Amino acid sequence: MSMEQLKKRLGQVSDLNAAGGLMSWDQETQMPPEAARVRGIQMATLAGLAHELFTAQETGTLLAQAQPGDEVEAAVVRVARRDHERATKLPTAFVEEATRARNEAHHAWVDARQHSRYATFAPHLTRMMDLARRQADLLGYEAHPYDALLDAYEPGMKAAQVKTVFADLRDRTLPLLRRIVAADDAADYRILERPFAPEAQKAFAWKVAGDAFGLRGDFARQDESAHPFQTNFSRSDLRITTRVEPYWPACLFGTWHETGHAMYERGVAERWERTPVSRGASLGVHESQSRMFENLLGRSRPFWQRYFPQLQQAAPEVAAGLDAETLYRAVNRVRPSLIRVEADEVTYNFHVMLRFELELALLEGTLSVQDLPEAWNAKMAEYLGQTPPDDARGVLQDVHWSAGLVGYFPTYTLGNLLSVQLLEAAQRDPTIAAGVEQAEYAPLLAWLTEHVHQYGRSLTPEELTVQATGQPLSADPYVAYLHRKYEEIYSLS
Amino acid sequence: MSMEQLKKRLGQVSDLNAAGGLMSWDQETQMPPEAARVRGIQMATLAGLAHELFTAQETGTLLAQAQPGDEVEAAVVRVARRDHERATKLPTAFVEEATRARNEAHHAWVDARQHSRYATFAPHLTRMMDLARRQADLLGYEAHPYDALLDAYEPGMKAAQVKTVFADLRDRTLPLLRRIVAADDAADYRILERPFAPEAQKAFAWKVAGDAFGLRGDFARQDESAHPFQTNFSRSDLRITTRVEPYWPACLFGTWHETGHAMYERGVAERWERTPVSRGASLGVHESQSRMFENLLGRSRPFWQRYFPQLQQAAPEVAAGLDAETLYRAVNRVRPSLIRVEADEVTYNFHVMLRFELELALLEGTLSVQDLPEAWNAKMAEYLGQTPPDDARGVLQDVHWSAGLVGYFPTYTLGNLLSVQLLEAAQRDPTIAAGVEQAEYAPLLAWLTEHVHQYGRSLTPEELTVQATGQPLSADPYVAYLHRKYEEIYSLS
Repeated sequence: MSMEQLKKRLGQVSDLNAAGGLMSWDQETQMPPEAARVRGIQMATLAGLAHELFTAQETGTLLAQAQPGDEVEAAVVRVARRDHERATKLPTAFVEEATRARNEAHHAWVDARQHSRYATFAPHLTRMMDLARRQADLLGYEAHPYDALLDAYEPGMKAAQVKTVFADLRDRTLPLLRRIVAADDAADYRILERPFAPEAQKAFAWKVAGDAFGLRGDFARQDESAHPFQTNFSRSDLRITTRVEPYWPACLFGTWHETGHAMYERGVAERWERTPVSRGASLGVHESQSRMFENLLGRSRPFWQRYFPQLQQAAPEVAAGLDAETLYRAVNRVRPSLIRVEADEVTYNFHVMLRFELELALLEGTLSVQDLPEAWNAKMAEYLGQTPPDDARGVLQDVHWSAGLVGYFPTYTLGNLLSVQLLEAAQRDPTIAAGVEQAEYAPLLAWLTEHVHQYGRSLTPEELTVQATGQPLSADPYVAYLHRKYEEIYSLS
Repeated sequence: MSMEQLKKRLGQVSDLNAAGGLMSWDQETQMPPEAARVRGIQMATLAGLAHELFTAQETGTLLAQAQPGDEVEAAVVRVARRDHERATKLPTAFVEEATRARNEAHHAWVDARQHSRYATFAPHLTRMMDLARRQADLLGYEAHPYDALLDAYEPGMKAAQVKTVFADLRDRTLPLLRRIVAADDAADYRILERPFAPEAQKAFAWKVAGDAFGLRGDFARQDESAHPFQTNFSRSDLRITTRVEPYWPACLFGTWHETGHAMYERGVAERWERTPVSRGASLGVHESQSRMFENLLGRSRPFWQRYFPQLQQAAPEVAAGLDAETLYRAVNRVRPSLIRVEADEVTYNFHVMLRFELELALLEGTLSVQDLPEAWNAKMAEYLGQTPPDDARGVLQDVHWSAGLVGYFPTYTLGNLLSVQLLEAAQRDPTIAAGVEQAEYAPLLAWLTEHVHQYGRSLTPEELTVQATGQPLSADPYVAYLHRKYEEIYSLS
């Protein structure tokens, strides 16, 4: 009986979260602008009520008394207990304050970024960091406050481990990057800014998301937003967004990136519907799927051999005079640049390492919010040899800190590393390997559903990684992949 | 302090309802089809939690102890107490039984209507009427059980009043209708089915909704749905929907109808934000605004004199060879027909009277569910000289009874009557009257906001009507309006 009551209550919490998620999606894609103020209040209420219901004494009692009847229920209880323990450490007043503050910070960031005025965002960032420190204290930690925050996105991962892995990655890919930068590069990248009608870009990206990766309108939709994202309100209600820019690959690869996230959520077994298990295991594992679709598959030679004809059909002027190989090389250009979301596979992780180091310093208080832009620019110069001409293209470029997402950035690089480790594990099956060589991904998708997606949060990221690949997360496969791919493209030997 | 707690709680209920409303809007306009099952569960959860929170013992205590500090708070407490009293009279077991029964009845109705098989719907209608009688008993009434049901949609209105007003209306407009039907009609109505590109229809309707009636993208949006509706999640977040049909005026007038609803909600004073006062006073008053925009303004000669050039620009092929006067006459065609939602201004109310008389007789038990189709067809013959070829185009055409909405229909006609009474009261101001003659509605809108919209539910429909027009609701202005307008169009003298 109490198991039924528990499931009912967890279902209600899930439904409240779905409603809050829909309000957020709607805000980014549909909502009339004047609605923003009240919507902020409404979203805070929903988040507060969900938190209240989940952290209520009665929920604690139901969790304590729960007697799971099978493995499915056992996972629900295990994950819900972990979440409950974490959530009961945050008072409702704190959660509501944080939600309101984040909403204000987000609007301030949008404005500050538009006018490249860091000063108007700085007080909000100070508040975000203060909230992050208070949150870490409320949650508790052993070694470092950052661990408490990181754990929300990457359960079990510690700042010290990230430091070690990142140092290894940096030492082994910075030399590769320098060799690439020094190499001759005769490709014509202007083709990537040929006029490509916005609606045609989105339609092509969406069509290929369906043909190659299985995302369909029956259970998903595509919209535009300022910052692309994936969200969902059940495994049959997946929403991805994209944006259109003069550099048209941004729309394509952005769409396929979000498709990776969406197909992960699609693959979580229905047996965990409306429970806290029914989501990806972590942001890192999530990112392994999005980056696999975007880069390992979407930026592969077989992919363009297969889908170049569709591009020719969708945008004849864009494809005029090109072939699959030219396009393959163009979309794999490596060039140190200012903007993370536009970065190639080799430089991307340096953008992440920079943010990780800076947010760690902000949290520790060894860097002040006031000095952040200068520190940002110094690291950009050190890693990528770039100097942002303004803060919009520097410290203000990402939404994350305005949303209070401290501890989030490292998961991008953890996901990159895992993406290659998983793909190589899958390709031990010759059918999958042969499929990937022909951009026929159905066998790979079946493997991912079986070994990754279906489990939702019932396995920790580490359990999942070991079970699916036979070893813990390592930078080795990713480093080898980068060398293999880019030594060939740039004729380094 | 308890006033603050009460306002917080009412705000939470309002936010839950807004979230549920957004889920519903999204379901009708955006949601991928496979999401329907889970969305149904999510919406039921939201509705259940809102009901639970509002009817909780603690809410009752807060309401009982509330000491309003001013007129604004006094209205909130008055309206919330009225809602709370009503909501707590229905036991949870009854609400759950009714919800299940309505769900079954709705599915049975969809099926029965599709196959035009009244017999399969009849047992469900019997159950709906039984539930309606039990609901009336639970809610309590003085003169007639119908009063208890009507009160949910039109607070304070009684069946006896409706009977009197409707009898008056019938006696004074049936002769007019017969004269119109007998008159020569040389107009060419095929122009109303000229091909009009769907996107262009919607864009024209939306543009005019902004130019004429003040609905703008800053605080509103337009989408498509199977059945047009208006919903909103705050006065700065108004959503209207429309649908496109071969008969293109359906999209235009449907849009302006929903615009009337939206501008009412827009006009409710911000001081009642997130309280139960923050909605239109009743369905009848709401309908007075939608019908005013749709018919009294949108189907007026000055309107088309002003906006015909915009139609020419938006759809040159549709407007080819026409002028404002031709169009004015075409969109005001009077013709008895079978379907309420397609009816003109003169015949519409007969569709409503027929339903009112029948549902009253069903509730009283003087008409059996089995005899309903025959009674329906007899009244159609009596009022409109029409005989439905099947029940799908007869007694099964409306969704309302399948959803348990007994007492709802009269509000359509009450709204029609009030629309003219309000417009004439407003036009006592010569600036407003001159504006209406030039289809310049800003002065009228200002009057409506001041005398109708701003009050929300703080006045009862009757208080509002007397305060705004100087007299209680009457059929006189509407009857006179119909004679004036249609005697001219049909050259009756």
